[in-house]
Amino acid sequence: MSKPVSPGSVAATLTEYWSPRVVAELDDSYVKVAKVKGTFTWHAHDQEDELFFILKGRLRIELESGAVELSAGDAYVVPRGVRHNPVADEECHVMLIERKTTLHTGSVTTDRTRSLEDQLRPI
Amino acid sequence: MSKPVSPGSVAATLTEYWSPRVVAELDDSYVKVAKVKGTFTWHAHDQEDELFFILKGRLRIELESGAVELSAGDAYVVPRGVRHNPVADEECHVMLIERKTTLHTGSVTTDRTRSLEDQLRPI
Repeated sequence: MSKPVSPGSVAATLTEYWSPRVVAELDDSYVKVAKVKGTFTWHAHDQEDELFFILKGRLRIELESGAVELSAGDAYVVPRGVRHNPVADEECHVMLIERKTTLHTGSVTTDRTRSLEDQLRPI
Repeated sequence: MSKPVSPGSVAATLTEYWSPRVVAELDDSYVKVAKVKGTFTWHAHDQEDELFFILKGRLRIELESGAVELSAGDAYVVPRGVRHNPVADEECHVMLIERKTTLHTGSVTTDRTRSLEDQLRPI
């Protein structure tokens, strides 16, 4: 039996910004949480949509077509192939749902890039 | 460009219990919201996991191995093939993520069963 999890409570325990942690599996996707602040990096996921759900705070997702402003309780899907850059002016806690195959910095490797092994560390 | 959505705000507008509404697409899955109260029906989804995220209130998911008690902010994945029965003693708002192929009452058809067309009505 899988166990209930409180994504918001897990996010509050994270100590490193932009370092997602897996909290559940859903078919071929992972449910992740992250604590973010500042600017991430422009990237795209060519094959996978990515769901952002804001647990706490505000997140701006910059897109080439404009920017989307999200507040706590908002959900937004970045469609596959769409270049985006998450920016949090203040600390923000976010739940992400993305394919297990998704690299969180997409096809870009930066000092923000975290291995899947790192994201799968016990919570 | 897809649009941000507030699942909690959409759930608050729903007028019928146990009648999920699609608020977003994520690859081959739908993000849905539902307002629930009372007892749903025992069912299973043979091929698909199902994510419950509680937006408001409390939900008990009865399982043959016991029951899981969820509060606002909690997430729980019912694994594929596991028979379950959601029960809300008081009104509860829930976000669901499940494959587009998932029938919300599984292989059971009851008066709770809603067509996909019904779930896809504009929000």
